[in-house]
Amino acid sequence: MGLFTKDMKTMNDLFLHQLQDIYYAEHQLVKALQKLAGKAADAQLKNAFLAHLDETKSHVQRLEQVFQMIGAVPKSIDCPAIDGIIEEADEIAGDIADKAVLDAALIAGAQAAEHYEIARYGSLIAWARQLGRNDCIGILQRTLEEEKAADKKLTSIAERDVNVRAAG
Amino acid sequence: MGLFTKDMKTMNDLFLHQLQDIYYAEHQLVKALQKLAGKAADAQLKNAFLAHLDETKSHVQRLEQVFQMIGAVPKSIDCPAIDGIIEEADEIAGDIADKAVLDAALIAGAQAAEHYEIARYGSLIAWARQLGRNDCIGILQRTLEEEKAADKKLTSIAERDVNVRAAG
Repeated sequence: MGLFTKDMKTMNDLFLHQLQDIYYAEHQLVKALQKLAGKAADAQLKNAFLAHLDETKSHVQRLEQVFQMIGAVPKSIDCPAIDGIIEEADEIAGDIADKAVLDAALIAGAQAAEHYEIARYGSLIAWARQLGRNDCIGILQRTLEEEKAADKKLTSIAERDVNVRAAG
Repeated sequence: MGLFTKDMKTMNDLFLHQLQDIYYAEHQLVKALQKLAGKAADAQLKNAFLAHLDETKSHVQRLEQVFQMIGAVPKSIDCPAIDGIIEEADEIAGDIADKAVLDAALIAGAQAAEHYEIARYGSLIAWARQLGRNDCIGILQRTLEEEKAADKKLTSIAERDVNVRAAG
């Protein structure tokens, strides 16, 4: 985007920009979830990451549908937020020896990413509603619900299982 | 932290690390909220940012209490996640000409930060519970509730006011 010009003028521009941002983020999360599943020691946690990896691939496809609905070509733009969230998760993971403590940290890292997405889809849905793009809302809402469910599932695995062993 | 050694061995180490991470984040958010309040055109939004700025200053103090409770000196560590979230919000804000559209983007940026904090405090509280640090839970929970309330207030301002004008 322009150093000397302000490229976003309307809420439609902002909606498209955010769509490109979360499109990048979902792509990065496909790669990150593969890594998380590879690192997780707890079988239930590994399966949760793999299940959400499948969901995340479908989130990418849903975003492509939304791009199509608004007559735009799917495109990613850099998203320093998700890059930072993933970088931080990698750094912490690289610094932990104990497998159960590592699992607890992997969950926290994944939940930071889920919450980023919850915020972003929440804004996109509010803007789509205001722009009268009811066709986009249903698709975005389905993804939002899956992000929230993934977050809750991780909390449940942490509290019932992983944290208990990590503190043991 | 070590390039060749894994410095975190226990859940207590992980708890302290996350505390240092969110301590850094809260400090950065004190600065970011001042900027957001300066940029907001909508008076209600400006006031919401200023009110949350005051809360954020008290969150820093509460974290210092938690450091004290666990016998640690308050210390920040780099947090690429919050740096990325703030960088992204700055980039988007710098790219928008229309004041109402800018307000909508400022809200989205602030909500991404709120959700990062909601995730982080959620993990800290779960870990404190597992570690039997009930003394820390109440303090962390108060902050978590304020982050959630700030997020909801921003949604309300967006939906009732800012987004309506931004799409107008």
